[in-house]
Amino acid sequence: MSETGEKVRVILIGGSGYAGFEAIRWILRHPQAELVGVYGPENELGTMESFYPLLSKQVELSQELFDPDKLAGLAADVAMLCVPHKVAMSYVPSLREAGLRVIDWSADYRLKDAKVYEKWYVPHTDADRLAEAVYGLPEYYSEQIASADLVANPGCYPTCAVLALAPILKEGLIEPQGIIVNAITGISGAGRTPTLKFHFPERNENFEPYSVAAHRHTPEMEQVLTDLSGIETSVVFVPHLSPMDRGMLCTIYANPTKDVSGEQLTALLSEAYADAPFVRVRDNVLPATKYVAGTNFCDLAARVDKGKVLLFSALDNMIKGASGQAIQNMNLMFGLDETAGLY
Amino acid sequence: MSETGEKVRVILIGGSGYAGFEAIRWILRHPQAELVGVYGPENELGTMESFYPLLSKQVELSQELFDPDKLAGLAADVAMLCVPHKVAMSYVPSLREAGLRVIDWSADYRLKDAKVYEKWYVPHTDADRLAEAVYGLPEYYSEQIASADLVANPGCYPTCAVLALAPILKEGLIEPQGIIVNAITGISGAGRTPTLKFHFPERNENFEPYSVAAHRHTPEMEQVLTDLSGIETSVVFVPHLSPMDRGMLCTIYANPTKDVSGEQLTALLSEAYADAPFVRVRDNVLPATKYVAGTNFCDLAARVDKGKVLLFSALDNMIKGASGQAIQNMNLMFGLDETAGLY
Amino acid sequence: MSETGEKVRVILIGGSGYAGFEAIRWILRHPQAELVGVYGPENELGTMESFYPLLSKQVELSQELFDPDKLAGLAADVAMLCVPHKVAMSYVPSLREAGLRVIDWSADYRLKDAKVYEKWYVPHTDADRLAEAVYGLPEYYSEQIASADLVANPGCYPTCAVLALAPILKEGLIEPQGIIVNAITGISGAGRTPTLKFHFPERNENFEPYSVAAHRHTPEMEQVLTDLSGIETSVVFVPHLSPMDRGMLCTIYANPTKDVSGEQLTALLSEAYADAPFVRVRDNVLPATKYVAGTNFCDLAARVDKGKVLLFSALDNMIKGASGQAIQNMNLMFGLDETAGLY
Amino acid sequence: MSETGEKVRVILIGGSGYAGFEAIRWILRHPQAELVGVYGPENELGTMESFYPLLSKQVELSQELFDPDKLAGLAADVAMLCVPHKVAMSYVPSLREAGLRVIDWSADYRLKDAKVYEKWYVPHTDADRLAEAVYGLPEYYSEQIASADLVANPGCYPTCAVLALAPILKEGLIEPQGIIVNAITGISGAGRTPTLKFHFPERNENFEPYSVAAHRHTPEMEQVLTDLSGIETSVVFVPHLSPMDRGMLCTIYANPTKDVSGEQLTALLSEAYADAPFVRVRDNVLPATKYVAGTNFCDLAARVDKGKVLLFSALDNMIKGASGQAIQNMNLMFGLDETAGLY
Repeated sequence: MSETGEKVRVILIGGSGYAGFEAIRWILRHPQAELVGVYGPENELGTMESFYPLLSKQVELSQELFDPDKLAGLAADVAMLCVPHKVAMSYVPSLREAGLRVIDWSADYRLKDAKVYEKWYVPHTDADRLAEAVYGLPEYYSEQIASADLVANPGCYPTCAVLALAPILKEGLIEPQGIIVNAITGISGAGRTPTLKFHFPERNENFEPYSVAAHRHTPEMEQVLTDLSGIETSVVFVPHLSPMDRGMLCTIYANPTKDVSGEQLTALLSEAYADAPFVRVRDNVLPATKYVAGTNFCDLAARVDKGKVLLFSALDNMIKGASGQAIQNMNLMFGLDETAGLY
Repeated sequence: MSETGEKVRVILIGGSGYAGFEAIRWILRHPQAELVGVYGPENELGTMESFYPLLSKQVELSQELFDPDKLAGLAADVAMLCVPHKVAMSYVPSLREAGLRVIDWSADYRLKDAKVYEKWYVPHTDADRLAEAVYGLPEYYSEQIASADLVANPGCYPTCAVLALAPILKEGLIEPQGIIVNAITGISGAGRTPTLKFHFPERNENFEPYSVAAHRHTPEMEQVLTDLSGIETSVVFVPHLSPMDRGMLCTIYANPTKDVSGEQLTALLSEAYADAPFVRVRDNVLPATKYVAGTNFCDLAARVDKGKVLLFSALDNMIKGASGQAIQNMNLMFGLDETAGLY
Repeated sequence: MSETGEKVRVILIGGSGYAGFEAIRWILRHPQAELVGVYGPENELGTMESFYPLLSKQVELSQELFDPDKLAGLAADVAMLCVPHKVAMSYVPSLREAGLRVIDWSADYRLKDAKVYEKWYVPHTDADRLAEAVYGLPEYYSEQIASADLVANPGCYPTCAVLALAPILKEGLIEPQGIIVNAITGISGAGRTPTLKFHFPERNENFEPYSVAAHRHTPEMEQVLTDLSGIETSVVFVPHLSPMDRGMLCTIYANPTKDVSGEQLTALLSEAYADAPFVRVRDNVLPATKYVAGTNFCDLAARVDKGKVLLFSALDNMIKGASGQAIQNMNLMFGLDETAGLY
Repeated sequence: MSETGEKVRVILIGGSGYAGFEAIRWILRHPQAELVGVYGPENELGTMESFYPLLSKQVELSQELFDPDKLAGLAADVAMLCVPHKVAMSYVPSLREAGLRVIDWSADYRLKDAKVYEKWYVPHTDADRLAEAVYGLPEYYSEQIASADLVANPGCYPTCAVLALAPILKEGLIEPQGIIVNAITGISGAGRTPTLKFHFPERNENFEPYSVAAHRHTPEMEQVLTDLSGIETSVVFVPHLSPMDRGMLCTIYANPTKDVSGEQLTALLSEAYADAPFVRVRDNVLPATKYVAGTNFCDLAARVDKGKVLLFSALDNMIKGASGQAIQNMNLMFGLDETAGLY
């Protein structure tokens, strides 16, 4: 229920991909939210269990045609928009017009500068709304999220990297240029469209770098880190594919601006996230993807070796990197406990 | 080199799939064979390393257009035909006309009865040649293989099941009707064309039956077992997908016709395969796919429980179930040691 | 809360193994139960997060020494007993004496006949209590479970096989002798004690039969099927290890007693489980472990091929095969909704 | 056969671990070498197939007791020493005394400075021999290897990192201090002793950093890079475990000393390894572990991003990182073709 005591009514747009599937599972478990409709494009209609047999006996809903002209009067409070970039910004105007608050899982409203967006993606068709959109990283923007009508749910890699770096950068303890973010992800992050690259025998027992110097999450990391620290930040980002379903781990290397120890950095992180329900600062054990799998936690650790600052950050790319974070944002938007439905 | 002391000259048709890739690797290692050409369809031409980066610095050959009209005078002894069924039988006539001996990896010449073939596959366009084709299971047809011009390389499942069942059936120790072959395979057997079913996140951490009562290897098993035992045999075949690259294991259940012990069956299998270089009968350890991975061996074991005969058979679906068996057949066809290049 | 409106207070004995870990996660999510204590042996004490870093910031409890003499006055309603067989029956007397209802995850109270138990396990030290224990398969014994003080939580394989077979056997549609249960499991079922057999490089990319004609779940299946059908039943059970964390699939073969179709069997299963919240009868898609992973569902399907009845049954061995079923039993014992906390 | 035309006679000491197993497989395939004996400690004796069922029908040898006092007169040319550090240096003196040339797979003779060795490992008991030992990286020390009586087979990580870095460092193109080597490995590298850390359910679907600022391969990398470049070099080395059997990938970050492009670095690497049969410089595709799996190749690539030099290096940790490199060294020591038996 929302502040008014009633359950938050959620519609989901784009239920046939992995992101939509995860969203459904979390809403099902949520004590104060309910899924009231699922919508998709013409060629992907049908019962949710026809897309995901796991959902049988749990979800009776069918994916129905998304028609932006028939949204008026829809009895819903919020739309989870789980569609690719470009499609998302073509849906948002009518969703907003219909009075729905929107949590957009795509990249369309994450970058504040339309020019930067257009350099990495496509021409922006709703650039005027960028100023209104709030970047949905609850650990830093919870107040703005609470009152936002349009939340841009962050990318998985930016969430993972920013949570580790922001407190250190804000204190000016590391040089803001040329921070190295070496990252790995499980394969679920690649979506559900089959291609040779993600064909089982190509990925199983394989580990591979990809999108070197070209991954679209790079400008997002840089924007958020710059915004949070007030210092122009640049990141060398190298993601890799690890043969596993889910999980993300960033190993970050930075140059300290002054003499600092791993213990000091650990203490700084611990203090920064003392009140964050989903960030855990590790000391005795380093972050590992299995320690966060199936949870909304992000685990952090810090070390110093030979004058380099080393940060480790792990999360479940499908949860804290996507669906769990969206629920966390929804909780904040509707005045619920930030952790509702998320354990 | 062949009997004449020269190396067997092999051409490969269909080098871009997993089967072709495996064929290339085995020929590279073979001391008495050499790959002299690779051919494919118009939309799949290029250097072999462009298809398989693993082959860089090992294979200089490019996949060139297969033109059945330009085979005359080709300086080659044998064609490895690694193309799908239907395509294979459209290539064989011209290959044979050009004087090449052929090892066909598809199903097109495995079933002796064109009607049976057409029931499970498509209309047969080269049915007259079925009588000439030899079923390439070296443990049982080595003499015919030696002089064959057209060898039908067996299916992976039939190889695995037949090697376990044939000696027992031949002795009349089990009822020939309703033999249960419960089988699993690694995912490489599904080929290289990406589909949702074989998308990494769909198969990883998943185990699933498929093609129940409908797998095309069923009539092949039945034909070979019937041929070898002289008794009309029928098989209930249930294959499953296990989340791994390669490996195949059949767990077979049959009703004994008389009182028989696991020890007796083990002894019978041991005797039957005493001279077979690539069949191993296990006693203390049961067959496991990792004990045969990367090898041309098929491991067998027998047990009796509560009056049921249990047989276990494991092989590497890409090797004894495909490429290794093809090389074994080539060795026999050219008078080489049966094991040449296969350890 | 129990019927009285308060939360069911649960203690867990044996929190350091995978079963205990799963139990904790489900209780954490349960809206009407709370974990009030965790106990273990002297050499395994400490905070729960020291055993499972995933539990940090979720469980503050430490595993404390289990002292059967200090149970009097313990403010708890039920004990989840996640310890190995033999240990379990040494703890149950004092737990019962202290007034706690007990859900025992071990095999100690599953077999009704102490002689059968002793043939497969060890001498029974609490045989008098066997009559009192209720076999915790909610789909068949929900009434007895509701009033039970001691519930024997079923084995994973028996749950999986019995749910598929019981309705068919009860109708007398298959021969009760020599039913074949060919099963596979993920590796989590093997527990947390490291051995060579479960060392990562030995199990990864490997598929292997084990405990052929010797698995202790065999007499359990036979007892329950005999009890439910009223016909003496015997099972040939062959389990296998598949390289994955979790999931179980049984492929069952039986001889029909009369002419029956897959459709008829499917209809029979559907009717039998129409009111069972956690059993799903599949038609268009066959059961697969990924369709039940992370859930308390058991998926079933039936086919007939060449006069054999084929049944498929899939569940998550750690959930419907262990922890979820225990919660389902707890719900019934305390008058809660059977599905509480289980989606 | 060696230069004299006879086969190189190899004994293997330590056949029960993964390294020994790999060594056996390669020697079996080698046209000019033969395995004449396998030796081990008292508690690990028996047929090789009892340790590795895969070796049945391939290796008749048994692991016999290694007795340093009975080596005199042994008809062998070279000992492959596949035992842990500390054990290795206790065996080498008697092996050398018996006239055997030795390829030691442990770390005991890799570090030239006994003090450095002792800081990272244990007290050195054969330090006088360090000067005599040759570091077995054939791409750089082939001449010394050819005449060496004691070759220290390199660590997997140093091989992987050094092959990428050495040509660049030698040209003075990157700063030699604080080079970052971010690495991942498959789990086979952890050896065959079961522990909780390498228990299947702990490693599967898990990705984790380990030995941060503490891995023993760090001083080895630094020594070899310093030796090859003539410049004191230091490395920040962070290894990680990826859920796969085999494969290793280093992602290396360094600061250029002058303006340099990825193309220039690629050209430099290509030139440096033009004559190296087992190093491949990639351009269009980045190195991936599956492109080198099962081979003795090391694949390299270079990029520049935001003023950082990025190097990628992949190899099979069990082959170019261990067994294949040992065979390559053996080939050089006995005047064979460097690639003999290695495709």
